[in-house]
Amino acid sequence: MAFRTKARVRFGDVDRAGIAYYPRIFDFFHVAFEEFWDRFMGVSYAKVVTEEHLGFPLIDAKAQFRAPLRYGDELTVSVSLKRIGGSSATWGYSIDSPRGERCCDAELTTVCVDMRTWAKRTIPDVYRRKFEACRPE
Amino acid sequence: MAFRTKARVRFGDVDRAGIAYYPRIFDFFHVAFEEFWDRFMGVSYAKVVTEEHLGFPLIDAKAQFRAPLRYGDELTVSVSLKRIGGSSATWGYSIDSPRGERCCDAELTTVCVDMRTWAKRTIPDVYRRKFEACRPE
Amino acid sequence: MAFRTKARVRFGDVDRAGIAYYPRIFDFFHVAFEEFWDRFMGVSYAKVVTEEHLGFPLIDAKAQFRAPLRYGDELTVSVSLKRIGGSSATWGYSIDSPRGERCCDAELTTVCVDMRTWAKRTIPDVYRRKFEACRPE
Amino acid sequence: MAFRTKARVRFGDVDRAGIAYYPRIFDFFHVAFEEFWDRFMGVSYAKVVTEEHLGFPLIDAKAQFRAPLRYGDELTVSVSLKRIGGSSATWGYSIDSPRGERCCDAELTTVCVDMRTWAKRTIPDVYRRKFEACRPE
Repeated sequence: MAFRTKARVRFGDVDRAGIAYYPRIFDFFHVAFEEFWDRFMGVSYAKVVTEEHLGFPLIDAKAQFRAPLRYGDELTVSVSLKRIGGSSATWGYSIDSPRGERCCDAELTTVCVDMRTWAKRTIPDVYRRKFEACRPE
Repeated sequence: MAFRTKARVRFGDVDRAGIAYYPRIFDFFHVAFEEFWDRFMGVSYAKVVTEEHLGFPLIDAKAQFRAPLRYGDELTVSVSLKRIGGSSATWGYSIDSPRGERCCDAELTTVCVDMRTWAKRTIPDVYRRKFEACRPE
Repeated sequence: MAFRTKARVRFGDVDRAGIAYYPRIFDFFHVAFEEFWDRFMGVSYAKVVTEEHLGFPLIDAKAQFRAPLRYGDELTVSVSLKRIGGSSATWGYSIDSPRGERCCDAELTTVCVDMRTWAKRTIPDVYRRKFEACRPE
Repeated sequence: MAFRTKARVRFGDVDRAGIAYYPRIFDFFHVAFEEFWDRFMGVSYAKVVTEEHLGFPLIDAKAQFRAPLRYGDELTVSVSLKRIGGSSATWGYSIDSPRGERCCDAELTTVCVDMRTWAKRTIPDVYRRKFEACRPE
């Protein structure tokens, strides 16, 4: 099943119309990805990056913004695997508002690299198997 | 012709690998859009937003990240109109590094709204004509 | 007693040395202030700002940075009232790392204003009494 | 004499009252510090950090916020050396609005460190002499 986490739209996230400045929405996605590592994968992304020298930089992004994220909203952010290759993985993200609206859908493709050299790497099997368990409903 | 501006990858933009954290790349796009208003449209986006109550929030984003933006890089960001409808406009963005690499291509679709009510509006003719003059080479 | 909350040092918070970029530390303080409203004051800061038109902008800041906040750290952020005047309030903040270090101490002075006019306002009694209950140990 | 540079208050810098979110003001200071290296010191801070492994993290900050920075404002940010020790340096910063107001004054103390080990270092003489030439009027 998909991984779900909460995020809050903070004072510093909103622009003068009181809605989230859109680059911050990609920040919500990244924070959700870090929480996915902590709580679904069972290892912190900080440890993966720092000790295993693995990184998952973004190579492709597609996003639709359907409704504004308002100041103070407690959002539900969901993450799931859509497709996986040797070193790339495509993740589906969505954000729902506390009013039950679908605010945002996104498809973000990452590639697994060695953080020291930036060279592409095969996704280690132990992570691949867990990624594959995080599927959309 | 396209609008071109410069941006600099700052200390606070990079992550621990020394490359720009990707949500900041969308911030570079927005700053380029604000400079496009100042220098190509001849009116500041702040004035458009504050005095004319017009806004151009994002409804769709597609981006490909081809090469990292490194700390200290002076980037060339280009903006041009790709398609225009009654209230929506699709913009092409690209970012080139000082090493002559194409780092990023994006297609961002905005919709014209009244910032007070968030209602969709027809793009005013005076702006539409100028948008149409900002075409890719 | 002081209000305490947790914060996490995220990928986008750190610079290339793997420690939090210092302007982000002030962001941790503001998020802690928002959580203080939610959980200690019993009303969301979003509601105070949006419905009561009250704001508490910063007029003075003093901070000492004693030890770096590292990527992945789960921080303890504490907030307490140090002094209060008619419209101003001085807050003590501290940040402790999971290694038991005191990373940061700060003293931030806010002034109560009407968010529509930016005019100074007396802190409403109901809030003053609660502020006064949030004291350092 | 002091070093002066320009900064622009961007859409993503402002909160819902249309003024700069205060942690972003510290970001303006850091960007001004990076421009000080480029244009006054004659070497990019990126190069100092990346090739010489020198960093100047903040250990103490004092700031007064006197008037809001409004969306669209072109700010004048000034930087000058106030005091210098063996490894520490205290910098004076100010921000003036296009309306001629002094918006912000700050005093920020940095310590020179080796970015690889985080150990304190003596400020190299070549930099010390140039720092000393950047004095308040």
